[in-house]
Amino acid sequence: MSVNRREFFAAAGAAGMALAAPAGAADAPAERKEGVLRISAQEGFIPGKSLEEKLDKMEKWGIEGLEVGSAIGREESLPKALKDRKVKMSAICMGSMGGHLVGPDKEARDKAAEQMKRHLTAAGAVGSTGCVYVPCFNGEQKLPNQEVRKILLDVLPAIGEHAVSANSRILLEPLNRGEAYFLRQLADGAAIARDCKSEGVCLMGDFYHMAIEEPSNTGAFISAGRRLHHVHLASRTRVAPGQDIKKPGGKKQDGTVELGDWPDGRGDDVLYLEGFIGLKYIGYQDFCSFECGCRGDKEVEIPKVVAFLRETWDKAKI
Amino acid sequence: MSVNRREFFAAAGAAGMALAAPAGAADAPAERKEGVLRISAQEGFIPGKSLEEKLDKMEKWGIEGLEVGSAIGREESLPKALKDRKVKMSAICMGSMGGHLVGPDKEARDKAAEQMKRHLTAAGAVGSTGCVYVPCFNGEQKLPNQEVRKILLDVLPAIGEHAVSANSRILLEPLNRGEAYFLRQLADGAAIARDCKSEGVCLMGDFYHMAIEEPSNTGAFISAGRRLHHVHLASRTRVAPGQDIKKPGGKKQDGTVELGDWPDGRGDDVLYLEGFIGLKYIGYQDFCSFECGCRGDKEVEIPKVVAFLRETWDKAKI
Repeated sequence: MSVNRREFFAAAGAAGMALAAPAGAADAPAERKEGVLRISAQEGFIPGKSLEEKLDKMEKWGIEGLEVGSAIGREESLPKALKDRKVKMSAICMGSMGGHLVGPDKEARDKAAEQMKRHLTAAGAVGSTGCVYVPCFNGEQKLPNQEVRKILLDVLPAIGEHAVSANSRILLEPLNRGEAYFLRQLADGAAIARDCKSEGVCLMGDFYHMAIEEPSNTGAFISAGRRLHHVHLASRTRVAPGQDIKKPGGKKQDGTVELGDWPDGRGDDVLYLEGFIGLKYIGYQDFCSFECGCRGDKEVEIPKVVAFLRETWDKAKI
Repeated sequence: MSVNRREFFAAAGAAGMALAAPAGAADAPAERKEGVLRISAQEGFIPGKSLEEKLDKMEKWGIEGLEVGSAIGREESLPKALKDRKVKMSAICMGSMGGHLVGPDKEARDKAAEQMKRHLTAAGAVGSTGCVYVPCFNGEQKLPNQEVRKILLDVLPAIGEHAVSANSRILLEPLNRGEAYFLRQLADGAAIARDCKSEGVCLMGDFYHMAIEEPSNTGAFISAGRRLHHVHLASRTRVAPGQDIKKPGGKKQDGTVELGDWPDGRGDDVLYLEGFIGLKYIGYQDFCSFECGCRGDKEVEIPKVVAFLRETWDKAKI
């Protein structure tokens, strides 16, 4: 007897569980949706002198989500700006709070927790899926990994429950080792989220960091599973997706640039195909949002980048 | 345009790469095989007074692989015992060398490296896929994760090249946090193996440890990809696979035992279905080997366990 993926989800659902993660309302097979590609951008990525001008361009280019650095103080202006727009709020790119939440100083820890709760309240008020959170950048803390993990399991559940009540989420962000020694892979973030036992503690993935740390973007997103609620888009070198399909090499005699393969053979075409297969596998519903630079004129390049993403999404099949 | 998985592998192969990992001969699409379930057992798991008696039982039960603790000193006797048998050598369960390879003491480190090379030479001589290696159990070393990782990248490539010349492999084994703070997930092990840039440095996965550490066995095995060359079979509580589908609860009034769900809702049925989907996805060709206890009479239980594995393998579909 063999079962296909749909039947497996049904069987897993009947047993009160889902493929990639423990049971949860979002995993009920009847509600399970096909994955969708909803492209978002950080505010600073889009050219324009005002938010209105940026939103006009985003709508023209088929970018449907807006990511900002903080919603504090913008609880009224952001929903107002997005009223009657096709663009919706995506994530809040909150940061690390100086790494203090996982530091040894109780007072600094409490202060960071309060600040995070304020961000989450504001995020919920503007309809954001969650606040991107880096436990600590390199240099912010020196505790060993297992100590940082213990502290997170101690302090995050209460913040996660605050997030739930605010109708938002904490989104753990794995970074590459050059930026953070703690939390480099999505499976690790998903296990921390699982162990916190709060639906308000989830995670995100960033294609730039993943290119360095993940042996497989498909495996990484499947491991993140239903806890994945935001994705950052970037190329291998953190310019726009699709701009690093080949590695620029030296100049040839005729003055043209010679292009070569990346050390591990994975250009943006492969990295995104791998990743999008994973996102389709888990039925991803949230935004994929530009956090990157751009090689060339954005007015010309962004439409090409959006086309690259949509073509790759269509090619990706489980 | 959409492509199915076969077409994607073909496209990835044409570009000199494969889905889960960089290019390698084993990944060439024309050579890519359907995954297979080849069941193996550690020598001690099979009842019997002699190796011959054990091998008779293994053949009767459809167990095709033999895992031993060391091949040193058995370079001639093992091939002789397996001559004209259906049972082939699987992995060597080597261990951690006291954790000395990743310790601060240069002399102890060199000694551990030499010992590992002796194991690898013997492994190659008996036709073993590789030597299972735990970098350090808890208590063996106290260096932070990033330091242990750096040391591994320094010392493992040469050992990996020795493994290649011996026709075997080092197989990194991720353990659960209770046994090792360093290396808990397959994606982490696969990234270390990738960064070592030696085909002789690969990894394995153990269903018991994975039940604790991996949010998804599918994601974990896909992340391991072509670098996965051995799997350990066990239930959630480290008895035989399929013996922990439900969690034993308290005794009911009538004296029978009440069965309940596991905390994360994943019994052996779900864990193995998830895992086997991943193994099929990567076209796994090596052994899955019992490293576990057994609840009940082995003569009765082992055939049931083998049947559970084969039924679950047939149910698993990508």
